[in-house]
Amino acid sequence: MTLAEISRSHGPSVAAQMSEIGARARDAARVLANAPTAQKNAALRAMAHALRQNEQAILAENLADVADMSRAGAAASFLDRLTLNPKRIELIAAGIEEIAALADPVGTVIAAWDRPNGLHIERVRTPLGVVGIIYESRPNVTADAGALSLKAGNAAILRGGSDSFRSSAAIHRCLQEGLAEAGLPKDAIQLVPTRDREAVGLMLTGLDGAIDVIVPRGGKSLVGRVQEEARVPVFAHLEGLCHVYVDRAADLDMARRIVVNAKMRRTGVCGAAETLLVDKAVAASHLKPLVEALKEAGCAIRGDETTRAAVAGVTPATEADWSTEYLDAVIAVGVVDGLDGAIRHIDRYGSHHTDSIVTDDAAAAERFLTQVDSAIVLHNASTQFADGGEFGMGAEIGIATGKMHARGPVGVEQLTSFKYRVRGSGQVRP
Amino acid sequence: MTLAEISRSHGPSVAAQMSEIGARARDAARVLANAPTAQKNAALRAMAHALRQNEQAILAENLADVADMSRAGAAASFLDRLTLNPKRIELIAAGIEEIAALADPVGTVIAAWDRPNGLHIERVRTPLGVVGIIYESRPNVTADAGALSLKAGNAAILRGGSDSFRSSAAIHRCLQEGLAEAGLPKDAIQLVPTRDREAVGLMLTGLDGAIDVIVPRGGKSLVGRVQEEARVPVFAHLEGLCHVYVDRAADLDMARRIVVNAKMRRTGVCGAAETLLVDKAVAASHLKPLVEALKEAGCAIRGDETTRAAVAGVTPATEADWSTEYLDAVIAVGVVDGLDGAIRHIDRYGSHHTDSIVTDDAAAAERFLTQVDSAIVLHNASTQFADGGEFGMGAEIGIATGKMHARGPVGVEQLTSFKYRVRGSGQVRP
Repeated sequence: MTLAEISRSHGPSVAAQMSEIGARARDAARVLANAPTAQKNAALRAMAHALRQNEQAILAENLADVADMSRAGAAASFLDRLTLNPKRIELIAAGIEEIAALADPVGTVIAAWDRPNGLHIERVRTPLGVVGIIYESRPNVTADAGALSLKAGNAAILRGGSDSFRSSAAIHRCLQEGLAEAGLPKDAIQLVPTRDREAVGLMLTGLDGAIDVIVPRGGKSLVGRVQEEARVPVFAHLEGLCHVYVDRAADLDMARRIVVNAKMRRTGVCGAAETLLVDKAVAASHLKPLVEALKEAGCAIRGDETTRAAVAGVTPATEADWSTEYLDAVIAVGVVDGLDGAIRHIDRYGSHHTDSIVTDDAAAAERFLTQVDSAIVLHNASTQFADGGEFGMGAEIGIATGKMHARGPVGVEQLTSFKYRVRGSGQVRP
Repeated sequence: MTLAEISRSHGPSVAAQMSEIGARARDAARVLANAPTAQKNAALRAMAHALRQNEQAILAENLADVADMSRAGAAASFLDRLTLNPKRIELIAAGIEEIAALADPVGTVIAAWDRPNGLHIERVRTPLGVVGIIYESRPNVTADAGALSLKAGNAAILRGGSDSFRSSAAIHRCLQEGLAEAGLPKDAIQLVPTRDREAVGLMLTGLDGAIDVIVPRGGKSLVGRVQEEARVPVFAHLEGLCHVYVDRAADLDMARRIVVNAKMRRTGVCGAAETLLVDKAVAASHLKPLVEALKEAGCAIRGDETTRAAVAGVTPATEADWSTEYLDAVIAVGVVDGLDGAIRHIDRYGSHHTDSIVTDDAAAAERFLTQVDSAIVLHNASTQFADGGEFGMGAEIGIATGKMHARGPVGVEQLTSFKYRVRGSGQVRP
């Protein structure tokens, strides 16, 4: 459907508004694609400054959002994510300054070679164009996503959760102040100015080719809807069903440290382990100490038969447990028939996000790293390293499990495309 | 819609068949992802051998296809593309051997770095998974596409034009013979065994996640339909509306050679120039000789007012001419206001495929190469170099104008994804 058709079926107002936003983003993207690094960085630093200067105004708007949601009976964890304070605003500002300090990927020559006929070919990074970010009520995403898109030379269209509408708008004003101060178009970062949910559906159509990629930031239902409906590429993961496999050649102490960290360091992140697999060859020696370490750390266990036989008081794991992303202090524990059993299990139940093997057997590690088809595979390390910062990429806009273009952490480099630049001296093709 | 739902709305038979093909391709892809280079190459060489051995059988099937289409009154150019002969079969076999000789991208480490905590991170190439190729009645695509997908470790689902159904099936039998001989699953390259057009629509849905990317090979209507309807990524270009811009600092002799080659070497390829833009600063000196050289080479001219004033007997260019991909001995010629005028014109009318500037001014060349947002931008060279072979990539499956993942020539490397392989020594995240 074209936007004109959508406009007829949805009523004109939101469709017209979104079409206008798309066209403006395209125009801004053309300017950004050729903006010097220094100008983009100046804008980012001015944004950080504006956020600090306008702290009181942002907090006032945030208070109104929080009060509304509190009256509406929102859960404490929701209100916590929504609430800003001076420390959080400072973190947002500092985060933008970190993005300013990152290397600018645009214009980087990724590869270069010469042809026998004298042509010199370069593969050079270019911006993607326009990034659409759809997120839930975390006001900080407004700043992170807008700044990261700008650094990569992209225009951004931000659609924040309606429950943080005023907070996001206050932050967005600071971003536009920074853009204006550096002489960049304000439309480089636009915030969708309506709470109407129709806007999301329209963004997923790509706004008649104006949006190059959509990045959803939020829970599984948001990401699922975006992946299902989007007619443009999406950088996302639906879930992080991460495994730690403790091999027969694993050092028990190392396995214990890694398993407890992978599950319990933070249980709500996508890189948190959800399933522990233990090689049956070492179940007798390793299973009990691993499960007890997890219990001691406060983790509930859903175990298969062997696990329940080894450790008392373990809840039986149902078939559904192997494909449940708990995002909580709960783990499924099962015994598998060696490396091949582990690979089969992960292939069947995993989400191709992040999986780790603990072993001192180099050959087993190689086979795991090669055959497990996940964005990130680790040997003797915690799955919680699944993070752009931990990878040394700087800020990330999320983690992708798709196989196209971006996979794993999506940082500033993953928000670029490339083109071929060919220099000749009059060559014609025979 | 899931395939089950589609099955209810379309009737079960084709949907069930395609669902089965998708599941088999997934299984084969799992084997291929871990197949050693030598085994894949052995399969490719065995395919070439089988094609040569079965030359007579292939020609007999092809004769039946050609006879049908001839009776149906197909155009001579169509029949020429459809017709095989011993020389063409030898070219197909030799093409597969060339693919066998290419480097295997799978397992290549693209980047590697160490983190301060001792983690060693590698970005390593992996197959994409399953490639769906939808093509018109050119039987050779069956072999090219199947072989290239296999080299990159991908399973292929081929859907050839129904008019070349028997020819494609005969070639496909040789490919499967080669796979079997090397001990690889026959389902690594499947040919959709029905002429039913419903199969195409089903492939465009991705077969419930079985297909990772679709590559359409054919005319604009096929590519347009695929780009419009596909729910999976597509590597393609809708058209190659390529420009040559002759700048004020262009050497006239060089410009003449490049313009004539870019337009006339082969007029039916996507890298053929469709528009010549001449800087108004040199219109007086350059326009007439360039246009006359084109006319001498047998090219018809559609000129703007200045062009018609400079050269007699030129047909007026209409607005539509600037966005027409002639794929024939016809060119639109216009005068623009210098480099900026050229960039604006290409931005407005181009298809982001391939564009060239002829100039001795290095600064003008840089600006053109940077600001023209096309997959391939050239300085002082013919647009007809837009080709994977000319880029030194070996065989290509096509040229993409999308900004995601693959842009420009799509060779064996572009048919891969990547993952992060992380090696530790017990690291946990603080």
